[in-house]
Amino acid sequence: MNVKEYMATLGQQARDASRRIVAATTGEKNQALLATADALEANREALAAANAIDMENGRANGLDAALLDRLELSPKVIDGMIDGLRQVAALPDPCGEITDLSYRPSGIQVGKMRVPLGVIGIIYESRPNVTIDAASLCLKSGNATILRGGSEAINSNKAIAECIKSGLKAAGLPEACVQVVETTDRAAVGELISMEDYVDVIVPRGGKSLIERISNDAKVAVIKHLDGICHVYIDDKADLEKAFNIALNAKTHRYGVCNAMETLLVAEAVAAEILPRLADAYRDKGVELRGCEKTRDIIDAAVANDEDWATEYLAPVLSIRVVADMDAAMDHIRQYSSAHTESIVTEDYSRGRRFIAEVDSSSVMINASTRFADGFEYGLGAEIGISTDKIHARGPVGLEGLTSQKWIVLGDGHIRQ
Amino acid sequence: MNVKEYMATLGQQARDASRRIVAATTGEKNQALLATADALEANREALAAANAIDMENGRANGLDAALLDRLELSPKVIDGMIDGLRQVAALPDPCGEITDLSYRPSGIQVGKMRVPLGVIGIIYESRPNVTIDAASLCLKSGNATILRGGSEAINSNKAIAECIKSGLKAAGLPEACVQVVETTDRAAVGELISMEDYVDVIVPRGGKSLIERISNDAKVAVIKHLDGICHVYIDDKADLEKAFNIALNAKTHRYGVCNAMETLLVAEAVAAEILPRLADAYRDKGVELRGCEKTRDIIDAAVANDEDWATEYLAPVLSIRVVADMDAAMDHIRQYSSAHTESIVTEDYSRGRRFIAEVDSSSVMINASTRFADGFEYGLGAEIGISTDKIHARGPVGLEGLTSQKWIVLGDGHIRQ
Repeated sequence: MNVKEYMATLGQQARDASRRIVAATTGEKNQALLATADALEANREALAAANAIDMENGRANGLDAALLDRLELSPKVIDGMIDGLRQVAALPDPCGEITDLSYRPSGIQVGKMRVPLGVIGIIYESRPNVTIDAASLCLKSGNATILRGGSEAINSNKAIAECIKSGLKAAGLPEACVQVVETTDRAAVGELISMEDYVDVIVPRGGKSLIERISNDAKVAVIKHLDGICHVYIDDKADLEKAFNIALNAKTHRYGVCNAMETLLVAEAVAAEILPRLADAYRDKGVELRGCEKTRDIIDAAVANDEDWATEYLAPVLSIRVVADMDAAMDHIRQYSSAHTESIVTEDYSRGRRFIAEVDSSSVMINASTRFADGFEYGLGAEIGISTDKIHARGPVGLEGLTSQKWIVLGDGHIRQ
Repeated sequence: MNVKEYMATLGQQARDASRRIVAATTGEKNQALLATADALEANREALAAANAIDMENGRANGLDAALLDRLELSPKVIDGMIDGLRQVAALPDPCGEITDLSYRPSGIQVGKMRVPLGVIGIIYESRPNVTIDAASLCLKSGNATILRGGSEAINSNKAIAECIKSGLKAAGLPEACVQVVETTDRAAVGELISMEDYVDVIVPRGGKSLIERISNDAKVAVIKHLDGICHVYIDDKADLEKAFNIALNAKTHRYGVCNAMETLLVAEAVAAEILPRLADAYRDKGVELRGCEKTRDIIDAAVANDEDWATEYLAPVLSIRVVADMDAAMDHIRQYSSAHTESIVTEDYSRGRRFIAEVDSSSVMINASTRFADGFEYGLGAEIGISTDKIHARGPVGLEGLTSQKWIVLGDGHIRQ
């Protein structure tokens, strides 16, 4: 069987399974999730053995330490997968929720029902635990899933897939509700993102270049996560103690994450007061500072150029710009932000109200660290990613983002006049 | 200036305008809509004169009667545009609505705010009144719009655009909130659907081939409406009086509309009772019947083949299939439906409950005519189209479908622990 036929078979099976799982009860779906958790627990040795092959191949193929670290299914990573499954089982089922059901003048009742998207294709890189994260969210939201992980994790992913299959079987659900692509042929990705008849949505998880390539080539809709060039703006009406804490936390709490601040904007009137103190704190943490001219008049910093404003460092590097006021800050954000997350620090009611209304990013904050932009912090329970798209789901995408709403109409023989 | 530069200029202007209109008050937007209505009223002669040029060119170019009919800006069509503007002004403003604002354990408050999509490109064919329909919905929902109408309507569209400009001016909003593409060069469409930096969503309105071409080529997200192959299933537990009325209304109320029934499915147990009566009524209305073998055992009908089940007739033609039961009906719907609208006629509670839950169409009905699938009937006030996509907006798309939701976070100096 060639790759095209193989993928079409997976697609047809997923479509069929999606038609079964849409009618699965919440209890059945939860049972499948919990039985999968039990299967992971019972098969720790088999998982470790499969992962050992991937790790050995990885070392032989010269994967770097960071990649090997992500590839490893340590006991702690397996614990995390088991916990994750149990947490998703405990979340409310989004499917079938009916809202806004009301009578129309014609006599019909019209409402909206939340429904699965159908079949979701997930394309990801080395981490095998994504197999469980993605499968559990898609399953709970009533979708069938086709998972295409990195070729370096193929043995780990197959072993995890066996556990999922046994979980689905225990709940009486079709095994094809979750399918792992078992070929490492790269053409499989091209097929997956083009099978409009079988796949409703693609969620790519990985680096920017992977996501851009998939978005460009996909015929199927993509829920995607590109950069996080996040800003904190310290207003001249800010409480400078809050500003200090937020600016420090947003940059230094973790560096390699999309919701870390990459550029700090400071109102000119308070720059001389806040920047020296912040600069000391950043330097203590080992953060490299790059600034505009006005910044460099106040603190020691390298020159920030236009490229800096447009860069997601994902590293202990921060660019700083002194701006005249909030309007200038919003202008900077409009020009350079990736529309992920921006925060204003201010005690001024009217400015906070305007910032929240006018800044067009997936998360907009007042007096809070950008690090809060996260599905767990927002109460979604879990997230499949953070969308930088403007339609469908924006920001952290949880179970609701993996569903849509259809219209339902209840009548009693009603006809159009 | 070449087309690429021209379109990029429109795009940049639209992006700038969208940043102004996102902060416009509901009052300003309503004022612009009402002032546009007044301008249409005051410029009836100029509109008629511009339209006369298009009509004359159309006749010279051999446009058929149906196209000329759609192209004409009769006094009645102008009345409709004026009414439409006033109705949209009267609708609630979707922008800025904050929902689900609640405290998280960390102390932050998290909620969702409804926001415009940004810049919407509308591509449509001959009807010049779409210019007003689309512009008014986009304006009310806080979006900037670039309108690309059919070249045969260019003079009418330019004249309408002047009225919109004066309306925007009266409200103090930038004229670039609504821009009509003033070149008839076909390359303009290609540019419009590719300008990812300037355009957030494309809404094509027109025939299936136009929409398919645009969907295939677009780099920007598309909210699209493809076929409406709608079904009514008459269950053996149906009230046959209701079934008769609904089946007749769904087919014969109007023929050339997407929510008209194209295939009637009838449970075998009641086929002999209901079909002869229905066949007589359809024949009285001049509807051509095509049926499966079992149908043709009961009534006179041509042979329906596989192509019939997959065809949106948009004409007084109906295909009829006798099925064993609701499961067989749902199987048929899964195979042939375009996922627009399906209705079951039944008095059986459990079957109705299953049909609503399991049929994956944008509108699913019990005991109601498919003709109700419409933005006005659903209470949206107006619609820009009926989406057959599964993500973002499904079914009738009104103001809400032209918006998205961003996350807002309100804190008091909160940082991640």
